Amino acid sequence: MTPGEARTRLQGLGLGGDAVDALMAHFEDAERRGKQGHGFQRVAWLETVGFEPSARPERLVAEEGFERWAGRGALGYLVLEAIVRATLASPPRHARVVVAERCFPSGVLGYWVRRLAEGGLVAALTATSPRRLPHPAGGPPLTGTNPLAIAIPSTTGQPVVTDVSMGAVTHGDVLEGRARPEELVPFGGEQAHKAFALAVGLQLLVEALVGPEPGVVLVVARPEHDPVPVLRELAEGRRLPGADRP
Amino acid sequence: MTPGEARTRLQGLGLGGDAVDALMAHFEDAERRGKQGHGFQRVAWLETVGFEPSARPERLVAEEGFERWAGRGALGYLVLEAIVRATLASPPRHARVVVAERCFPSGVLGYWVRRLAEGGLVAALTATSPRRLPHPAGGPPLTGTNPLAIAIPSTTGQPVVTDVSMGAVTHGDVLEGRARPEELVPFGGEQAHKAFALAVGLQLLVEALVGPEPGVVLVVARPEHDPVPVLRELAEGRRLPGADRP
Repeated sequence: MTPGEARTRLQGLGLGGDAVDALMAHFEDAERRGKQGHGFQRVAWLETVGFEPSARPERLVAEEGFERWAGRGALGYLVLEAIVRATLASPPRHARVVVAERCFPSGVLGYWVRRLAEGGLVAALTATSPRRLPHPAGGPPLTGTNPLAIAIPSTTGQPVVTDVSMGAVTHGDVLEGRARPEELVPFGGEQAHKAFALAVGLQLLVEALVGPEPGVVLVVARPEHDPVPVLRELAEGRRLPGADRP
Repeated sequence: MTPGEARTRLQGLGLGGDAVDALMAHFEDAERRGKQGHGFQRVAWLETVGFEPSARPERLVAEEGFERWAGRGALGYLVLEAIVRATLASPPRHARVVVAERCFPSGVLGYWVRRLAEGGLVAALTATSPRRLPHPAGGPPLTGTNPLAIAIPSTTGQPVVTDVSMGAVTHGDVLEGRARPEELVPFGGEQAHKAFALAVGLQLLVEALVGPEPGVVLVVARPEHDPVPVLRELAEGRRLPGADRP
């Protein structure tokens, strides 16, 4: 799907101009970073899911150190867009926990935390999604792939952005035939119990705060130190996570 | 080392009664959960590290949604003991980010978050430690093993507690000859880049907030939902992370 076709089809879903711009910016970034499964092809999927194009997320609690948002039927991308904009417009003095109920799909988590880091903030974001990962011993799916994305600004160069799903492959890989369904398990091979434990912890953390429907938990803070240049120097040119590929 | 010998030798280090009790409780819990590397044998190591037995951590910032602590030369165990007690005595209305500078050693992170969950709070805790994990492509150590521990209370039974280090083995395993130094790499085998990315993200998150000396970042929140019973039922008897071994 071309960018032009994606834009036209998003407009055809009844989304307003701001919403279309926000979705296109996310999809374009995903394409540019090689995450085609989160790129323009998602437009065809959005045409099948049924959502209220005029829905708007609502901020239910707004305190200095805590915010609670509700998706209210809006696409998760647009909930996160609203959270990122609100946070950059009014950053925490020290730190803030932001939770969002009914925030699906959440897209590429690294995209949202990168924007916060480009605005000078440290950010860590995790999200639940439909249960797809089984226990390493087998059985039914127990957790989502539950990525954890972390971004840290740097006084030199780009922020470092890590974005790790707990699955050995992605659900998109399975849908598109690049992986078999039985490969969608916690990553790590013989040490898959570690990725499974991370997925369980993140699943329950998010669910305890926002309930069983997919949602997100974001921690955002003002950095007091500048650790990225030191790590870059120690790495002696080895590629750090989230760096733009040459 | 027996519990009695451990207690006597801790007293011999000049630690007060409360401090000895706090350390003993941590070491006993580690022994009971099969983490002998974090148990009584640590007393012999503490005798070698040199610390100020009368040092007390200080809370530099105390707001509803954010606290900053400084270790002030106290053992990391005692900094975390003070943080756990203060948090249980005055829990957040919604959520709080707590950071601690110079908090080393931090011990078994699962021990601290479990106590918070037993007090009804959701908690996620990570910590930096000396750099020991190299890039998956090789080279010098770039990050600590940087565990992430998450605990969630449950209306039925014990909290679920996950506690995952990003190393394939522990530093203790290497010290005690159970693993070779070159095995202390990010876990995950062919997908070690994922555990490495997690270690990098957590390292920089902590360092950005508390500086280059080992420290901790804790997120603690009041749960609004009770997801553990549902997950336990879905798991159909399979062992979830942090469950007491039979």
